[in-house]
Amino acid sequence: MSPVDHAALALTLEVASTPKPGNVDRHRDHEDLRFEHFLAGAVGARSGLELAGTVGDDPPSLGDAFERAVRGMSQQSGGNTQFGCLLLLVPLVRAAATDRLSPDGLRGTTAATTVDDAAGFYRAFEHVDVAVDDPPADAPDLDVRRGADAVPTLRDRGLTLADVMDLSADRDGNAAEWSSGFERVFDAAEGVLDDDGPLTDRLARAFLDLLAERPDTLVAVEHGRERAAAVSREAAAVCGDLDAAEDLADRFLDEGINPGTTADLTAAAAFVALERGVSL
Amino acid sequence: MSPVDHAALALTLEVASTPKPGNVDRHRDHEDLRFEHFLAGAVGARSGLELAGTVGDDPPSLGDAFERAVRGMSQQSGGNTQFGCLLLLVPLVRAAATDRLSPDGLRGTTAATTVDDAAGFYRAFEHVDVAVDDPPADAPDLDVRRGADAVPTLRDRGLTLADVMDLSADRDGNAAEWSSGFERVFDAAEGVLDDDGPLTDRLARAFLDLLAERPDTLVAVEHGRERAAAVSREAAAVCGDLDAAEDLADRFLDEGINPGTTADLTAAAAFVALERGVSL
Repeated sequence: MSPVDHAALALTLEVASTPKPGNVDRHRDHEDLRFEHFLAGAVGARSGLELAGTVGDDPPSLGDAFERAVRGMSQQSGGNTQFGCLLLLVPLVRAAATDRLSPDGLRGTTAATTVDDAAGFYRAFEHVDVAVDDPPADAPDLDVRRGADAVPTLRDRGLTLADVMDLSADRDGNAAEWSSGFERVFDAAEGVLDDDGPLTDRLARAFLDLLAERPDTLVAVEHGRERAAAVSREAAAVCGDLDAAEDLADRFLDEGINPGTTADLTAAAAFVALERGVSL
Repeated sequence: MSPVDHAALALTLEVASTPKPGNVDRHRDHEDLRFEHFLAGAVGARSGLELAGTVGDDPPSLGDAFERAVRGMSQQSGGNTQFGCLLLLVPLVRAAATDRLSPDGLRGTTAATTVDDAAGFYRAFEHVDVAVDDPPADAPDLDVRRGADAVPTLRDRGLTLADVMDLSADRDGNAAEWSSGFERVFDAAEGVLDDDGPLTDRLARAFLDLLAERPDTLVAVEHGRERAAAVSREAAAVCGDLDAAEDLADRFLDEGINPGTTADLTAAAAFVALERGVSL
C-alpha cells in the first residue's frame, strides 16, 4: 500500500479503535457526530491526501493538500470529524512519499513550508467549524476563525505554516507535533509496533498512553486546563487495561469530555505504524 | 464524491452497519476475521475500483479491475473480506461512471464483457480463498477454484464474464444480480432512500429485508438449502426491528451462520443509494 492508502486506512482504524474514552469509536457515537460521518470523512479526505503524496519537481503545496483534504472531509453532516488528524497526516504522507519518515525528516518537511501553505491552512477553516482556543492577545489578526481574511496578515508578516504552528505549539497538541518533529507520534507508533493483538486494540492502548502522558489540548480548550489534567490522571489509572477504560469511556461521553487531539495523535501513530509494517 | 469514492465508502458503511446477523459488523467480529480486516480490504481494493471508474475510448477491462481490486483487498491476514462486494461494485462503478446506473444500464455493462473479463475473474480466485459451490457436473473444467488454469477452457468455449455469471445465477446470489440487471440491488437502494435515520441503521434494515426475501446462497453452500431457507424465515421474523435482530446476530455468530452474499448485496445497495444522494 502507498502512503496515501496508509493514511486513508489510519483514519478508519483510529475511529474503529475502542475504547477511546470521550471519542467516537467503534462502540460509541456522539449525539450528532456518528461513526458513519468519520467513514465518509476518511473517503472525502482522500483527494487531499493524494496531493500530499504527490512528489516530484513541483509537488502540490502542503497547504493546498490540507485544504483539499478538509474540504473533502466536510462532505457529511456530522461536522468536524478529522481536521486535526489531517493536519498531522498531510506532512507525514509527504515525508513518507519522499523517504523521510523520521523526526528529522518531518522537521525538514515542515521547515520547507511557505506562506502559501499557511494560507491554505487558514482557508481550511472556512470548510468546517473547529473548536480552537483564542489567539494570543498580541496576535488577534491571526485568529484561525478569520479563515481567508487572515491571509493578508500572514503575507505582511511573512509567516509560513511552520511559523503559524510554532505560535500555537504551547496550546495545541497537533501544532506541538509540527514543532517537535512529531516525536510523540513516532514514540506512540513504536509502542504500537511493540504491542501485540488486534491492531485496533493496540491503538486504543496507545490512545490511553498518550492521554495519560499529557493533557489533551482540546479538552483544555473546552473545559480548562485543570479539567484536562484531571482527565489525564483518570486515563493513567486505566492505562493498558481496555476493560477498565470502558467505564471511563461511558463517563467521558456523558460528561462531554472529548480528548480529540489525542485521537488525532493516535491516527498519526497508526499511519507511522502501518508505514513501518505493523501486522494487520 | 466520485463513483470510486462512493464504492470505497459503501464497503466501510456495509461492515459498520449493525446488526447484520451472522456477519462481521460494527459490534461483532469472527474469530480470525475482524472489523479491521474489512477496513484494510476496503482501502486495498481502491486501485481496482479506480480501474472500474476509468472510462474513455479504451477503458480498462472489468476483469482486470476486479482482479486488481481483489488482489488489493487481500493484503491483510483476515482472508476474504469483500470478494462478493467487489464483484457487484466493479460493474456498478463502471455503469455509474458512464451514466448508466440503472437496471438497463447494468444489463448493457455486463453484456459488453468479454472472455478476457472472464479470465480476470478466474485469476482473482488465486489471491484469496473464497467459499464456493461445486461447479455444474457437466462443467468441471470451469471450477473457479482452478483459477488461471481454467482460462484455456474459457477461451475454447468463448465464455464471457456475463456467460460465466449466467452459469452460476441459480446458485449464487451475486451472479444472479449480474444476470438480472442488479434488480435486487436497485430495489434495496430504493428502500434505503425511502427509510430514515442513520445510514448504517438503514443498511442494517436493508440487510434484514434482503435476507428475509430470499435465502442467502453462501449459507446454502456452507449449510445446505434447507438451513438457508430457515435462516431467511428467522430474518423475516425480525424485519425492521434492529433490537430484535441483535439476538439473532449473536445466535448466528455462535452457530457459524454467515449470510455473506446478503452482505454483498447490502454493500452494493449502499453504493447505489450514495450515488442517488442519500443523506449522510
